[in-house]
Amino acid sequence: MNFLNEVSSLFPSAVSLASGRPSDRFFDRLNPQVLLNAVNVYQNDSVGGHGGAHGWAHLLQYGRTAGIINELVAQQVQCDEGVPASADRVLITSGCQEAVALCLPALCPEPSDVLLVCNPTYIGAIGAAKATGVAAAALSNSEPCLADAIELAVLQLRQKSQQARAIYLIPDFDNPTGRVLDADERRNILQVCARHRLVVLEDNAYGLFRYDGDPVPPMAALDEVGSVIYLSTFSKTISPALRVGAASLPDTMFGDAAARRSLWEDLVRRKSFVTVNTSQIAQAIVAGLLIQNGGRLGDWIRPALDWYRENRDIMLCELDSVFSPFSDQIRWSRPSGGFFLTLDLPFRFGADCADECARRDHVIVTPLSFFALDNSQDCRIRLAFSAVTPEQIRTSVTGLGHYVARRLEQKLLRLRDGGARG
Amino acid sequence: MNFLNEVSSLFPSAVSLASGRPSDRFFDRLNPQVLLNAVNVYQNDSVGGHGGAHGWAHLLQYGRTAGIINELVAQQVQCDEGVPASADRVLITSGCQEAVALCLPALCPEPSDVLLVCNPTYIGAIGAAKATGVAAAALSNSEPCLADAIELAVLQLRQKSQQARAIYLIPDFDNPTGRVLDADERRNILQVCARHRLVVLEDNAYGLFRYDGDPVPPMAALDEVGSVIYLSTFSKTISPALRVGAASLPDTMFGDAAARRSLWEDLVRRKSFVTVNTSQIAQAIVAGLLIQNGGRLGDWIRPALDWYRENRDIMLCELDSVFSPFSDQIRWSRPSGGFFLTLDLPFRFGADCADECARRDHVIVTPLSFFALDNSQDCRIRLAFSAVTPEQIRTSVTGLGHYVARRLEQKLLRLRDGGARG
Repeated sequence: MNFLNEVSSLFPSAVSLASGRPSDRFFDRLNPQVLLNAVNVYQNDSVGGHGGAHGWAHLLQYGRTAGIINELVAQQVQCDEGVPASADRVLITSGCQEAVALCLPALCPEPSDVLLVCNPTYIGAIGAAKATGVAAAALSNSEPCLADAIELAVLQLRQKSQQARAIYLIPDFDNPTGRVLDADERRNILQVCARHRLVVLEDNAYGLFRYDGDPVPPMAALDEVGSVIYLSTFSKTISPALRVGAASLPDTMFGDAAARRSLWEDLVRRKSFVTVNTSQIAQAIVAGLLIQNGGRLGDWIRPALDWYRENRDIMLCELDSVFSPFSDQIRWSRPSGGFFLTLDLPFRFGADCADECARRDHVIVTPLSFFALDNSQDCRIRLAFSAVTPEQIRTSVTGLGHYVARRLEQKLLRLRDGGARG
Repeated sequence: MNFLNEVSSLFPSAVSLASGRPSDRFFDRLNPQVLLNAVNVYQNDSVGGHGGAHGWAHLLQYGRTAGIINELVAQQVQCDEGVPASADRVLITSGCQEAVALCLPALCPEPSDVLLVCNPTYIGAIGAAKATGVAAAALSNSEPCLADAIELAVLQLRQKSQQARAIYLIPDFDNPTGRVLDADERRNILQVCARHRLVVLEDNAYGLFRYDGDPVPPMAALDEVGSVIYLSTFSKTISPALRVGAASLPDTMFGDAAARRSLWEDLVRRKSFVTVNTSQIAQAIVAGLLIQNGGRLGDWIRPALDWYRENRDIMLCELDSVFSPFSDQIRWSRPSGGFFLTLDLPFRFGADCADECARRDHVIVTPLSFFALDNSQDCRIRLAFSAVTPEQIRTSVTGLGHYVARRLEQKLLRLRDGGARG
């Protein structure tokens, strides 16, 4: 995480394709006066009954641990993402990361409890598991179908007297791979999870950023038994500096309403001991912007969405142009949304390589090994195209091309030398 | 924690002496325009080199995990509290509670590691230990001297193959007891802690709120070996809604500079997996207010300080007047600062009693058993005088008087009945 957020300051002259940041260029819509207006809109919204009527002093105090804008957030994930959320089951968190960090130990309280994760997966999920003392097990990549891989993992863990309790998933535009699970895959996974009483932590930070094709319903919308906790964030849609995210619990946990209430209370209690509550100033800003935008963010993100789509197209075009001579050895993904694509290289690419690439070729990319639980991702890298300009994409892909050409040449020389010696 | 922050909404007609909130009446100094100005002051402070020069878009992005206002915060704890803090050892957290929640598992990583706490102690410390899976052991109250109690606890744990690794302390105006440790006690504790390599987590939320007498130097200022992590917050001095606190590490951990750097990195890594970073908007507000106030908050809090002092005096006066007829059975503390005093009652006072007292006598008080690890505090309550008006103090102490009189009468009747039967 530190690498992702801080590496660019180490190489200020390099273009960073490392961090999945939203683009800065739309932050001028959020100048200080706009934020102030948003707070005032929330404050004056006594009609909507969103709590603004309590006044400014109330806002500056300690407040409800579970949050004060739950109704607006429930409405937003309903409208924008089709998730059947309800205010009394929404927990407002200090960024989505806190939601992950609270859910993992709550769902896996025993030492034999295990969180399942894809391999690779979001570094913040593995890190939160480590930081909260929860064991994480990677799903096997040799099963072509995720549902089968889950089934296998559950059984293998059971043989070691361990219990899979939850699975962390990013079904839409996965971080780091960009992959989207189709509706059938989602339903199959839900079936396996229901059978084994596995809770799905569905992290949907990127779902709104779809550039082509039809959206697939979130797993929380397909969930019929009460197995999906839906994690959402305003970091990509509004601003990461707000640190506002949310966890939306299902109506019941596997049909048990009391179990859901008890999990809810456990999460609220845990939150009170980690951050007390989420900044009510930040919550008020989010609330005001939601009210001003009719409760949804679909239109609000449109300019950014168009920008990201164009960035993706330019990056794919540049990759085609720079790497077509190596197309037998190098492959890359063509994501239909999100902030990332991945490259498969014919050589290992670790932290030392990222360093050299940044220093010599002025482009910062992220080794996929950072997101992995084994060495299966050692030859892959992630490129984020969200926070760069078209010009930066062109120079950085060219730079990456130089790096790759050098590595391939070295490889060739080693092969020849080896051949001469052999 | 939920009780403390949310109970008042259950009994809206009762006066709450439950939560240690700052008084709302000084929040009008923090109207939205003031906060906006503070952000602008920080933004424009390129001279001070406090990072504002990077501009607004930079502020709205993801940012440095350890914080962006570390220099100003180091300066503030130096100026206001005499703590030898340095920016490169300050971690900005999402409220002081996050600092506790990060430090505990970092200092007590092994299952046999134990956190020592006073009994009673701040509920957030016990809760954070529970939430992060760290074992907590209460110091014995039968040792009159805290240093001896620590020594005893260390040895007793060792016999059970457990290691005391840290102690959580509020040396100034303790929550919940209001107690202040004198300089000798602090030095003795530091000696014992140095001998056993125990890290002191010094939580100083209330130190600036001293109403009489001379301040005692914080333990971090008396620390000569590198054993004290100093925890500070802007929740009481500015506003809880900012959710900005800080942990200031010593220069070395017990003389070992590498150990300090390694602990620092561990804390930063943990923070990245819990909240990523602290809201940069909230940090900018704190920074702007600090710059506007010459880097310190001593003058800023003066009006509140005077108000709290008067509240304390009024509460003591009311307690004297209402409870003097029972002075042989009821005792209360006379704190020289902070937000709390405690009452010792001649009967048990649990959650059910707090409920009855709130419903029938319209005053909400906190049972000290909520802060305890055993039943030693079952007959004590905490009264917070910070967030009430003089009028509310009068009516609430009168209400508490009615409750106590009723309980004493019941006790007397039971005694008589018992006597008649006996």
